[in-house]
Amino acid sequence: MSIDLRIDNAAYVLVTDADGAFLTNVSIAIDAGAIIGIGEGIDTPADTVIDARGCVVMPGLVNLHTHLAMTLLRGIAEDVDLQGFLERVWAEEARVMDAQGVRIGTRLGALESLLAGTTTALDMYFHPEAAHESAVELGLRHIIGPVFFAGRGPDGLEWDERMESARRWPEVLERIGGPYTPVSLMPHAAFTVGLDRLSEIADLAADMDALIHIHASENTTENEQTLEIVGMRPLPALSAAGILDRQTVLAHAVRLDNREREMISRINISVAHCPGSNLKLASGAADVVGYREQGIRVGVGTDGCSSSNDLDMFAAMRLTSNLARLQRHDPTALSARDVVLAATTEGARALGMGERLGTLEVGKEADIVIIDLDAPHLIPVRDPYTSIVFSAGRSDVLHVVVGGEQVIAHRRSTRVHHRDVMDDAVARVKEPG
Amino acid sequence: MSIDLRIDNAAYVLVTDADGAFLTNVSIAIDAGAIIGIGEGIDTPADTVIDARGCVVMPGLVNLHTHLAMTLLRGIAEDVDLQGFLERVWAEEARVMDAQGVRIGTRLGALESLLAGTTTALDMYFHPEAAHESAVELGLRHIIGPVFFAGRGPDGLEWDERMESARRWPEVLERIGGPYTPVSLMPHAAFTVGLDRLSEIADLAADMDALIHIHASENTTENEQTLEIVGMRPLPALSAAGILDRQTVLAHAVRLDNREREMISRINISVAHCPGSNLKLASGAADVVGYREQGIRVGVGTDGCSSSNDLDMFAAMRLTSNLARLQRHDPTALSARDVVLAATTEGARALGMGERLGTLEVGKEADIVIIDLDAPHLIPVRDPYTSIVFSAGRSDVLHVVVGGEQVIAHRRSTRVHHRDVMDDAVARVKEPG
Repeated sequence: MSIDLRIDNAAYVLVTDADGAFLTNVSIAIDAGAIIGIGEGIDTPADTVIDARGCVVMPGLVNLHTHLAMTLLRGIAEDVDLQGFLERVWAEEARVMDAQGVRIGTRLGALESLLAGTTTALDMYFHPEAAHESAVELGLRHIIGPVFFAGRGPDGLEWDERMESARRWPEVLERIGGPYTPVSLMPHAAFTVGLDRLSEIADLAADMDALIHIHASENTTENEQTLEIVGMRPLPALSAAGILDRQTVLAHAVRLDNREREMISRINISVAHCPGSNLKLASGAADVVGYREQGIRVGVGTDGCSSSNDLDMFAAMRLTSNLARLQRHDPTALSARDVVLAATTEGARALGMGERLGTLEVGKEADIVIIDLDAPHLIPVRDPYTSIVFSAGRSDVLHVVVGGEQVIAHRRSTRVHHRDVMDDAVARVKEPG
Repeated sequence: MSIDLRIDNAAYVLVTDADGAFLTNVSIAIDAGAIIGIGEGIDTPADTVIDARGCVVMPGLVNLHTHLAMTLLRGIAEDVDLQGFLERVWAEEARVMDAQGVRIGTRLGALESLLAGTTTALDMYFHPEAAHESAVELGLRHIIGPVFFAGRGPDGLEWDERMESARRWPEVLERIGGPYTPVSLMPHAAFTVGLDRLSEIADLAADMDALIHIHASENTTENEQTLEIVGMRPLPALSAAGILDRQTVLAHAVRLDNREREMISRINISVAHCPGSNLKLASGAADVVGYREQGIRVGVGTDGCSSSNDLDMFAAMRLTSNLARLQRHDPTALSARDVVLAATTEGARALGMGERLGTLEVGKEADIVIIDLDAPHLIPVRDPYTSIVFSAGRSDVLHVVVGGEQVIAHRRSTRVHHRDVMDDAVARVKEPG
């Protein structure tokens, strides 16, 4: 009798537990989707054996805020202010982002994500069913759910249709299958949904035990618009609507005042910090060190490719640490270990999946990234967490395992031909609107 | 009769002229080290033909401030303040950085640089002759020269020996050969050299028509220490010593006041902006947009691997643009084109090589990078400058040409075995001190 998968000879295994420990020269045994052993001398026969000689083995990265389908909008809105940005994005969305466009864009985004070591993505976009089918096809642990606007979005849905699709969402997840993900509801933002409808969503989330994923306080303009439209700033609006009583991920949360920080401290609210997008759009820099000191959970995200242009969690990790040091005038403000934990363990906890994911420990689901250290830019290795954050990059990802299945092998998808995914995306963008 | 090299089918050629123009679907003819033609329909027989189908072809990147040998110190000093940083770096330098250590470290740094699209590096380190031999062996356009401290450095040289080695430096360059580089003198910083000796160097640079490369105003501590030791802040000290009358590159220049900015505006003084290092060490963020508006030339550098951990000019370019937007609260503060020009054209001008390098134009020396766009994270391409700065990375560099010779082919050095370079580095670091 053999197990499904064994990873041998791992030079370094980043456990990503609270101590930031790592193991050296060990094997990992995986069966039925879960880690069943980590240590020296494991030689249980396995259907597949990955040789991780000279590699770092770590938990898969959790991209805590993205819009995968927006790969198709990469580079659409450069060197413009927010108004110009939105105009260009909306025009292109109307042109290419029907269900088929979302399907094609999400396939590209899921492929890019997995190749770069992301195993779990908290997504948000129109046509979530089409998006989820694509991402699951690629093997990504993909969290998406119905998206909510007060007005009619480019998907043409009315409010009641959105609510109805939310109630049916567990059936969709059941039908599509793939790695486990929680049921999720995705109101766009307080100022685009409004207080009453946010309350409806909070109630529904309570009924369904659903995760909520929402944009909040991305920049000062959003704060001002929300005050004008809703009568409150974003965080008080979310609180009033009951959104902060749920397990909720706040995308961005750049511009919080002290009272707002206290509102989300030590509860099931997490911040998805997206520094690449926040800097590129000049939204500001979230004070993540202050948040952490105050007991606010912080994960890391890339945002969508219309604003941050790629889905590179390695770049996001490095920028997270560097930006924190700049803001705090302190080169010890946020260590490489802190950042790796934010992008793995804390991300999993933010999704309510801390018991299932986010560390390499026996009993956890096997979402694992194997990173090749055999490159000039990675020599020598003194501390593997430091190597991952400050020297490694997406191109060093060699193998990726999600839910116990190898979905990237030697930098190639085991599920699809890269050529097909890329050609479909280029063709879609070139089609006359 | 055939020419040396032809690059065919380039999807995009970034000219990097003042207009930020690009050409599509053209060929480039190269002979005797120089570009002799760019356009459609070039079919002159060539000894080597590179197929650049689906690629961006651009000028080689100019890393305007680095310490290549410090690859051996990668990750030596993490999560410590400046004092802890210096203690660890100095201890490890004493242990591994004799001439042989510098030779090994510079080989690794030159290999990493070329693989990442850097064709010209302004280096600074002890044992410059050993460093230069190594970098030229790899095919890098490598600018280094004697380094100056008032005290005895880890190389054990006295002041008079440093001055004597400077006078003999042109002979060393002549003997070693390789792609053309200017004669250069490298005083470490105002506070480590002192005013009188800076004047000696300025006089010598005038005699020798030499470039000067010096650290200046990296952080507030340096400003304070310089004031204490020299009696002036760094820029006034450099001015008083005559350093600002030369062609000089100021590494970092993070903490300049208004009067200091005016001192270096519209003259042959350039700032080597190293945002990765400046953020990681919490030195601050140079106001490069303000500098540019004020007529100060700004190029881009990585610094050495003890502080920024790799030699990735793509990461430095992206951070340069993103950081400028954060600082100016303006998403249009520094465009992708601005940044590519800073990392190519402006870098070449900073070195006094603007007539020879930095754009892809007939008559220029052929320092060229060919970047493969055929990857999921690069699709679709809407503007090639944007793709280079915000989506591409070092691993997309496919071929590199320096001085008309192909030194990287299909991501491998044509000059050395990567394995040998990497093994030598690991062995050197592991040797007992």
